[in-house]
Amino acid sequence: MVSPIKMKKMNKDYLNEKSLDPDDWDAFNELLYKVSDDLVEYLKNVGERPVWKSLPKDSRKLFDESLPRTGTEYAKVYDEVKQHILPYPTNNIHPRFWSWVGGTGTPSQLIADMVISAMNSGSLGLDETASTYVEMQLLDWLKVLLDYPSDSSGLLVSGGSMANLVGLAVARTNAAQYDVRNDGIDIKNNSRLIYYSSTETHSCIRKAMELLGLGSESLKLIPVNNDYTINIDLLNQAIESDIEHGNTPACIIANVGTVNTGAIDPLIELSKIAKKQNIWLHSDGAFGAITKLAKKSKHLVEGMELSDSIAFDLHKWMYIQYDCGCVLIKGGAPHKETFSVIPPYIKNFERGLASGPINFSEYGVQLSRSFKALRAWMALKIEGSDKFGELVEQNINQAKYLTNLVIKNQHLEILSPTSLNIVTFRYINKEIDENLINDFNAELLMRLHETGKHAPSSALLDGIFSIRVAITNHRSRLDDFNKLVDDVVIIGNNMLEDYI
Amino acid sequence: MVSPIKMKKMNKDYLNEKSLDPDDWDAFNELLYKVSDDLVEYLKNVGERPVWKSLPKDSRKLFDESLPRTGTEYAKVYDEVKQHILPYPTNNIHPRFWSWVGGTGTPSQLIADMVISAMNSGSLGLDETASTYVEMQLLDWLKVLLDYPSDSSGLLVSGGSMANLVGLAVARTNAAQYDVRNDGIDIKNNSRLIYYSSTETHSCIRKAMELLGLGSESLKLIPVNNDYTINIDLLNQAIESDIEHGNTPACIIANVGTVNTGAIDPLIELSKIAKKQNIWLHSDGAFGAITKLAKKSKHLVEGMELSDSIAFDLHKWMYIQYDCGCVLIKGGAPHKETFSVIPPYIKNFERGLASGPINFSEYGVQLSRSFKALRAWMALKIEGSDKFGELVEQNINQAKYLTNLVIKNQHLEILSPTSLNIVTFRYINKEIDENLINDFNAELLMRLHETGKHAPSSALLDGIFSIRVAITNHRSRLDDFNKLVDDVVIIGNNMLEDYI
Repeated sequence: MVSPIKMKKMNKDYLNEKSLDPDDWDAFNELLYKVSDDLVEYLKNVGERPVWKSLPKDSRKLFDESLPRTGTEYAKVYDEVKQHILPYPTNNIHPRFWSWVGGTGTPSQLIADMVISAMNSGSLGLDETASTYVEMQLLDWLKVLLDYPSDSSGLLVSGGSMANLVGLAVARTNAAQYDVRNDGIDIKNNSRLIYYSSTETHSCIRKAMELLGLGSESLKLIPVNNDYTINIDLLNQAIESDIEHGNTPACIIANVGTVNTGAIDPLIELSKIAKKQNIWLHSDGAFGAITKLAKKSKHLVEGMELSDSIAFDLHKWMYIQYDCGCVLIKGGAPHKETFSVIPPYIKNFERGLASGPINFSEYGVQLSRSFKALRAWMALKIEGSDKFGELVEQNINQAKYLTNLVIKNQHLEILSPTSLNIVTFRYINKEIDENLINDFNAELLMRLHETGKHAPSSALLDGIFSIRVAITNHRSRLDDFNKLVDDVVIIGNNMLEDYI
Repeated sequence: MVSPIKMKKMNKDYLNEKSLDPDDWDAFNELLYKVSDDLVEYLKNVGERPVWKSLPKDSRKLFDESLPRTGTEYAKVYDEVKQHILPYPTNNIHPRFWSWVGGTGTPSQLIADMVISAMNSGSLGLDETASTYVEMQLLDWLKVLLDYPSDSSGLLVSGGSMANLVGLAVARTNAAQYDVRNDGIDIKNNSRLIYYSSTETHSCIRKAMELLGLGSESLKLIPVNNDYTINIDLLNQAIESDIEHGNTPACIIANVGTVNTGAIDPLIELSKIAKKQNIWLHSDGAFGAITKLAKKSKHLVEGMELSDSIAFDLHKWMYIQYDCGCVLIKGGAPHKETFSVIPPYIKNFERGLASGPINFSEYGVQLSRSFKALRAWMALKIEGSDKFGELVEQNINQAKYLTNLVIKNQHLEILSPTSLNIVTFRYINKEIDENLINDFNAELLMRLHETGKHAPSSALLDGIFSIRVAITNHRSRLDDFNKLVDDVVIIGNNMLEDYI
């Protein structure tokens, strides 16, 4: 028990109480109007600005300034943002941005983001509030969209990396024949848990293996076929070999759209293997899972719904603002068993604020969280899910279009089959030395960025440097790809004299 | 190499290209004005609304509706939000919200959130863009504020749970005498890594231990003193005992403000032990770390800067909108060594878009992320860091004030020393049966919520149910605590006849 507690001496300096509310609400409201005006212009004309430009010295200088101890007027700070920050974004909102897998986002979500900011809801789930029900409803909608059973559990997370980490953690619980939460990974008294995926698998899977204490050694990367899908025979061999050696095959990670080329592993076959061997099947559908919404292309991801868990992003191919990923895990699965810890201070009550229907922390890492669910909830209401499917279809079609342009162009070489929304290619010329061709194309890509006209990224495919165009962009138009091909060829042709 | 790739058949349905941009930008701009008006009113009058009320049937019904396949006008969807969502928030923005450790947020961050939403920057760090430099600058400012060396590494993450996970992962790398990333946790050929913290430690630490494959068994929870700080003698004994038994003491987790009572472990003593035994010292300063900004109270967290890593939240006691946590790790530490994986598709270039100065993914789990750094960056510019310190001081002072009110009140009993910003107490009456007193106070808390007047949460202290008031709220006023005490006593007195 506590020893007697004495009266506290108050500090008189702080009796004149302050807050962080604006002194003048009307002026603040006016400023929000101005910000609205500016941002509407910003979004409306995004395609007219360069897709990338380097930061001028002035802006660099601002970012070297030391900690501000005293304040500055709202409007002045906003002016700095307008002058030095808004013009130099990552620019995944630009119609000719095709780097990595950057989602475009959607203007209407400005509304959601304002509401989220004002409410600032802690969104625990255990709070009996609208944010809780919105998130639960959104998860239900996502299950319908991805053809997952309604009794699956799910969670919104920061993105695909985190969603994969959750899925792989659940697979660990499922496979371990001991109390892995209590004991930790135990290869002394138990067999090693082995995970399988293709060599094209995203690096976040390796990172998850390492974080989970399983070790990247326990991630068997199976070679791929010519189309960059996993080689099923080699997978089967690896599993059999592990069983022979006393290891425990624990999880297969299916790629629903690889990061390099958009290749989709044979999902139905993987599901059969997983069933037969009693192995957890996890789908990494960071962007590819959203193909399920596209009526004419959904067959490409058929079988994805057979996996035990799926990780995917809303901030990529569903054009939701950053950051928002999601993981869904099939009913009866050890999802809650992996994460649930309920200490008394987040106890659920029968009535009042803390009488909410769920405790989201039982399904992942976070406790209090942003009310990000509202973004996707409003977006689905405003656009309707069919529209997202049509836009995915549109991007797939644009990838086909670009593929055809590349194939038809004598200066360019396509480097991977276009199975979804990613096109990889390079500039070629017989006169360029074999040893220089990678450097040549890397230089070409940098020059392309420097024109401010196009922003693809790169991939290394069997040692070949490739320009990589990943289309998760609702603002891209077919003509943008004509221009891309033209500009790549012009730059390449101009570079030739330096390289031959 | 790839087999010959054929021309793709285009789908003519998608040649009429669509986007997610508004059909009418002006109408959209008008709607943003309306949203601004509403939200300014919402924030301005927050204290006049109840801190909590249950959702009416109508709203519940909305949240049961099935997936919307087709769209709805922006304004109509916003009206639904206004009617069914805005009135039912977690309400950590309310002056009399003191549950869990919910931060208030700041109205001016509406500006930042609008800019973040419009830019939607992928914020990788490897992109040569303003978002990269803003985040690096913010991290530098935070190092200054917490007295961490400028060559420390750092990362913005989703919150305290994730920040702690990162810190504990780095401690794992530091302590393991083998390649833990490759091999996984190996207690077959190596000794067990042991982490130490007090029994008052937040549940996210246990969760991190479990996720990292270390096992909660390897987390030794050391009993606390009467003031809920860690018992140093017992800690020393535990460490010695582990060394004797061939285990490896790997990490001490210092509580800089426990979740139950705000107790601060003896940081300088812990640092001495950690140094002597060559153990990683990690500070969990989820809210307490921000005390460092308060000029008169910063001595309470003296020694925090001696830890090797620190996890803290900006969305709690720095009143930044959700979600934003941060981890700082001392220079030369194995932070990057724990997380760095750079596959070719996120390769850094010398020039162009991908020529940014850092790759944030080398310091944590995420790859593309929201540009959340802008919120705290703008907040520090607008308010100045001194102001945050004053508000922290104000909250500490309010906790003292409430403590005195409770001590002076014959119906109430204080249950823990108020060392920071958390006050725990209960209603007492000699006539209430010992076995019913916990139920009594839980019922009292629910009734308090139901009045809509106050929202504290609860804690269980040595088996005693306590009403717990955690003040990380810049809108609370001294008089709010007068009202709280009055209302608790009124409700308690009214309940008496049912319990005695």
